[in-house]
Amino acid sequence: MVGKSIPRVDAFDKVTGRAKYVEDILPQDTLVARIYHSKIANGLVKSIDTTEAEKVPGVVKIVTCFDVTEKHYYPTAGHPWTLDVSHQDIADRLVLTDRVRFVGDDVAAVIAENDVAADQAVRLLKVEYEEYPFVLKPLEAIKPEAPQIHDDFKRNILRVTTREKGNYEEAIKEQGLIRVEGWYSTPIVQHCHIENHICTARTENGKIVISSSTQIPHIVRRIVGQALGMDWGKIRVIKPFIGGGFGNKQDALYEPLCAFLTLQVGGRPVTINVSREETFVSNRVRHPFNVHLISHLRADGTLVARKVAIYSNQGAYASHGHSIAAKGMGALAQLYPCEHFSAEAYTVFTNTPVAGAMRGYGIPQTMFAEESHIEDIIKKLGENSLNWRRNHIMPVGFEDTFSKNVHHYDSFNQCFDKANAYLDYEKKVELYKNQTGEKRRGVGMAAFWYNTAVWPIALETSSCRMILNQDGSLQVQLGETEIGQGADTAFTQMVAHAVGVTIDKVYVISNQDTDVTPYSSGSYASRQTYVAGFSITKTAQELRKKILDVGYRYTRVSVDLLDIVDNNLVRITDNKVVMTLADLANASLYDTDFSQHISAEQTAQAKSNAYSFGCCFVEVEVDIPLCKVELIDIINVHDCGTLINPALAEAQVHGGMSMGIGFALSENLLIDQKTGKVLNDNLLDYKLATFMDHPDLEAQFVQNAEPTSPYGTKGLGEPPTCPVAPAIRNAVLHATGIAINDLPLNPHKLFEAFKEGGLI
Amino acid sequence: MVGKSIPRVDAFDKVTGRAKYVEDILPQDTLVARIYHSKIANGLVKSIDTTEAEKVPGVVKIVTCFDVTEKHYYPTAGHPWTLDVSHQDIADRLVLTDRVRFVGDDVAAVIAENDVAADQAVRLLKVEYEEYPFVLKPLEAIKPEAPQIHDDFKRNILRVTTREKGNYEEAIKEQGLIRVEGWYSTPIVQHCHIENHICTARTENGKIVISSSTQIPHIVRRIVGQALGMDWGKIRVIKPFIGGGFGNKQDALYEPLCAFLTLQVGGRPVTINVSREETFVSNRVRHPFNVHLISHLRADGTLVARKVAIYSNQGAYASHGHSIAAKGMGALAQLYPCEHFSAEAYTVFTNTPVAGAMRGYGIPQTMFAEESHIEDIIKKLGENSLNWRRNHIMPVGFEDTFSKNVHHYDSFNQCFDKANAYLDYEKKVELYKNQTGEKRRGVGMAAFWYNTAVWPIALETSSCRMILNQDGSLQVQLGETEIGQGADTAFTQMVAHAVGVTIDKVYVISNQDTDVTPYSSGSYASRQTYVAGFSITKTAQELRKKILDVGYRYTRVSVDLLDIVDNNLVRITDNKVVMTLADLANASLYDTDFSQHISAEQTAQAKSNAYSFGCCFVEVEVDIPLCKVELIDIINVHDCGTLINPALAEAQVHGGMSMGIGFALSENLLIDQKTGKVLNDNLLDYKLATFMDHPDLEAQFVQNAEPTSPYGTKGLGEPPTCPVAPAIRNAVLHATGIAINDLPLNPHKLFEAFKEGGLI
Repeated sequence: MVGKSIPRVDAFDKVTGRAKYVEDILPQDTLVARIYHSKIANGLVKSIDTTEAEKVPGVVKIVTCFDVTEKHYYPTAGHPWTLDVSHQDIADRLVLTDRVRFVGDDVAAVIAENDVAADQAVRLLKVEYEEYPFVLKPLEAIKPEAPQIHDDFKRNILRVTTREKGNYEEAIKEQGLIRVEGWYSTPIVQHCHIENHICTARTENGKIVISSSTQIPHIVRRIVGQALGMDWGKIRVIKPFIGGGFGNKQDALYEPLCAFLTLQVGGRPVTINVSREETFVSNRVRHPFNVHLISHLRADGTLVARKVAIYSNQGAYASHGHSIAAKGMGALAQLYPCEHFSAEAYTVFTNTPVAGAMRGYGIPQTMFAEESHIEDIIKKLGENSLNWRRNHIMPVGFEDTFSKNVHHYDSFNQCFDKANAYLDYEKKVELYKNQTGEKRRGVGMAAFWYNTAVWPIALETSSCRMILNQDGSLQVQLGETEIGQGADTAFTQMVAHAVGVTIDKVYVISNQDTDVTPYSSGSYASRQTYVAGFSITKTAQELRKKILDVGYRYTRVSVDLLDIVDNNLVRITDNKVVMTLADLANASLYDTDFSQHISAEQTAQAKSNAYSFGCCFVEVEVDIPLCKVELIDIINVHDCGTLINPALAEAQVHGGMSMGIGFALSENLLIDQKTGKVLNDNLLDYKLATFMDHPDLEAQFVQNAEPTSPYGTKGLGEPPTCPVAPAIRNAVLHATGIAINDLPLNPHKLFEAFKEGGLI
Repeated sequence: MVGKSIPRVDAFDKVTGRAKYVEDILPQDTLVARIYHSKIANGLVKSIDTTEAEKVPGVVKIVTCFDVTEKHYYPTAGHPWTLDVSHQDIADRLVLTDRVRFVGDDVAAVIAENDVAADQAVRLLKVEYEEYPFVLKPLEAIKPEAPQIHDDFKRNILRVTTREKGNYEEAIKEQGLIRVEGWYSTPIVQHCHIENHICTARTENGKIVISSSTQIPHIVRRIVGQALGMDWGKIRVIKPFIGGGFGNKQDALYEPLCAFLTLQVGGRPVTINVSREETFVSNRVRHPFNVHLISHLRADGTLVARKVAIYSNQGAYASHGHSIAAKGMGALAQLYPCEHFSAEAYTVFTNTPVAGAMRGYGIPQTMFAEESHIEDIIKKLGENSLNWRRNHIMPVGFEDTFSKNVHHYDSFNQCFDKANAYLDYEKKVELYKNQTGEKRRGVGMAAFWYNTAVWPIALETSSCRMILNQDGSLQVQLGETEIGQGADTAFTQMVAHAVGVTIDKVYVISNQDTDVTPYSSGSYASRQTYVAGFSITKTAQELRKKILDVGYRYTRVSVDLLDIVDNNLVRITDNKVVMTLADLANASLYDTDFSQHISAEQTAQAKSNAYSFGCCFVEVEVDIPLCKVELIDIINVHDCGTLINPALAEAQVHGGMSMGIGFALSENLLIDQKTGKVLNDNLLDYKLATFMDHPDLEAQFVQNAEPTSPYGTKGLGEPPTCPVAPAIRNAVLHATGIAINDLPLNPHKLFEAFKEGGLI
């Protein structure tokens, strides 16, 4: 059951248009809400004149920031809640605000009977502002003279953390050290999931019922409660099928506002259907990082001491906040261990779109810096890129003191071997030396590691319920969410394996409903297959125990001699089928002496984490006059432990690689420095990588079973994105001799760099 | 919490139109199906010409009985399933049939994009029949020469049972016995719930998903599986709010056909929205009974021997079959115990609409016979109606050998006392003696007993799940269904009581979904409050244990010293609140050492039953020339044990009384004896009793706590209907001296009787 590439369990429904998304289940009588977003980057809304807007036929109600009289500030990050106040996310949002902090902030909303009326009315709102100076870049925002965006955060620093090991200042006094220094920066990118965020809210049965395109229904329930100052049990969140999230939907986006709005119209259904333009500006983006790295090495290549500074641009509100910069910093300390290590990471507010979670959660940014920097080191040392890495990368047996993660196998070298063999990397390193001409080829590589799940930073808990049907099939309820990645298919296989039934007997309930779905925090941190592995195993054990106990009643075969194999109760001594599971389920339910509807429900907590490893190798052809990078070949190799479903794992890697390619070569959300306005808030002007932009994507795996995981799995959702950009950057360097440290490597950047480097 | 008249938990949603019924949740792209019903009473469909019908724009597919190639005969009765083949319901239905057995049988269906196209196409179907002779009355159908409707049932007898006690034939040889004999008959009546049956089916996640207006979602799941020859786990049934059922929806009505039809169009949604006309003819009706009673008494009033024959008209298909006649017969044996008792009950197929479950399940019919007959006996003896009953009705301590039901208290006399006092009955018995004139008053009374739930005839099982929220509130899932009667409100009170929380903290999930709702068989047999009492209690015990165990972790107060009172964990030694339930739920879920999402799920089986008692006293004024009965005053008094919610109990009695009044005075589904066609299939011609037809309805209670029930409750849903008709009949007898034994007592009947009795 596990390890087979069975087709996705939702494939048929999705290709036949039968799978229900939020837009398919809107109440027939829903009102629509459109949001008026701030037109200025920093300031105060002084007044809103709704007179003209209210005259638009079909307008039901206009709700402004001045209607938010009870100010319940709430956090939006999709983190598991904590009762430790010092670890709680920063509560800095209101459903609507008069204190606007970026172009796109939420000021007012029009509730209308139809889209046309709502759009028209929003345009007719007359908003008077008091404008404040604004700041768009973290390195400027931390200056004392910069405008302060949030009262409680001096110099706009949301948080700063440091990590010290050994004694950097002493260590660098050693004679003969080679010093390598670099600044590396990454752009603002957006998730660009197919389905924009949409949510609908109404009141029913004394609750606010919200259907939402979210990765985190249970967390959204809590946040809506916080945002409205209501008991959390009065909020019910339903998550049907959703069209991707990539972290953007690991935030409470417009569910709190939508819930607030339904209360303004007496509980009538209200729907917020976010446009692509709003998605770019008023949802979440990836944190752009400025990373400053200084490394000191001995002539033999030994890393002696390193200094790291990370400046993460948070945008206007805290969202996931500092955890992304902190995670990025942590990655730097472990990939190439070094005795003396001094790091600091700043998360800085600016008047730009809010940064939140995005696939990789800080690692694509720092891996770009790190693996670019390592390549620069290797070049300066005159070493072989692959060999130097083999010698200095995290060694087998390495254990992180905080996460307790262990590098159990020789995963990096195993990944490198596969990638090298596929791309003929080492041969091409030599082959493409000293090229001239307009088109030059190059190869590049980069490695990475990634955590699985969030323990011990935060809680890892997963609950599961299984319900046995009268035909021996079973429903499975999990708080872990299918968001397009194929989670339900993996769960199906895991459940079949754990219970002892065939795949066709397992029905994972895809849609979460916080009223009845056991609690789990949702889809993020590449956690789901790993953490649900524990709850599925634990719940299956309870279910199996109940089944075997009942089985004994009808077969008189001792429970110790019974097993469930392929939908049958089997006597293990001779593998005889003593009863089918269907017969057992029927006998149990309809037993006039001992009627029992068999089900099981358990919470499992994970107190472990696991390193996920991998690398990306690429070959590029650079057109020097056109300043264009063409990707010729690319391979990702991952050790994410045992694969539950190889075909789905491969597809997940493909998607992550594509996202990495966009991050490397083209994607860049541009902000007008004079106004703070996003300039390319649409898929025409924002250059999302598509399959036209990349060659066939090769994904391979090293399956080192993770010993802390019941299924041997570890994180794969986010890892594929992490190593792609530095591999491409290093290939461009290899092809042209030009090191470009500022993503994306688009023609504008290449033109500047090639001019400076004398290539053109 | 229990015993208070809190407002209905669904009141707000219902009066604001917010509660969702099937029609509110139809898929936006649903097709509609219309059924072509047989135009003949008995025969064979030889051919169906669909040519013209298929030309109608919007017709998607026409499905006829000839497309039902796999003949999966299925039973429709909403009984719990049994693995004992001899006790299984008769499987005699096909989703569409060419062997038609009544005018209204289901022959073909048109699936179309809209109602208009479907209606038009149904009218254009050309059906050629081979007509057979038909029979409409049970006493004719049992004759050897009658046409046989089902091959397996000779003389059209579905089943006959007998009940023998003592030796009737010997006993009646006693000298000096007074013999009283009578035939009593009841009409075909229909449930007339507000919302007609509607269901919609589609395929999703490898299942057929059906939303239906049904009382019995879990049973419908099983029946649809049987009807389609599919694994039951592949069927999912959702029951949203429904607008009444009264037993009609205790049958699988059109869910099997709807499921069949969606498969004919590749799983696209198909909706069958039943019209009122179809509801009267092609759903279910109450079994009309012909009851023959012979009683032999001594001069002192002692009942010596009785002979009973019941002929129950089943209509064309088995549905609930013989259980209704059998139940009716059982009631006769127990209300006025008698040493020598000989009874037989026949359930007989005829070519009339199918009879199924209806509020009272055979008891309104036999109580009409019994209490009319008893009144005739009393009259013949010259006794006092009330006194004779007091002396001869089921005595305190009486125990039924089969059900083990016990008459624990002096319930009948307590009920009589209240009714007598309210109506001043005994005084009026004297007052209205020997009236003359055109308008004459009379008083009448009748008693009844009723079972609670179906044990030991069938399985009584109920499962419950409770889920604790982070604010200390909880969701409750039960397979027992709210069908308009207020069940969810009663459950809310029971759960609050059992767990130790306040009413506002309990959210009963009203809508059943067989994929996630614990199994219970549904709403029927006045079972729900009684049987769910067991599962609520058992589940609450498990939940409380989990809460107290967790509470010990955080409070260090021994579990034995902890209780849950008003949403708080309380130390019982000093009633000190040591923790709120909300804090406990949060601490438990977000505990980084012992995270637990607290829930509980249990199945409870009831192996007891309970007598529910009561009576009806009425006062009428009969207009002799107009042959019209005006109801002046009416009271029902019930001992249904402890009341969970007195206001809701009262409302339930009012509804049952109204239904009894219609049964007594006006309702009668007329069938053309020449064609078998129903003549009054609409609410204009079928004279449903409305509040215009009755005085204020008085409901009173005797609350004798039922010792077998955790909440002291026993059945109330059906009882109120049982004693009304005989009480009215006896009042008319009192007023006029005319005994009318054929319901309803409408002007036509009165005219005939008064003419025969010489009054006009």
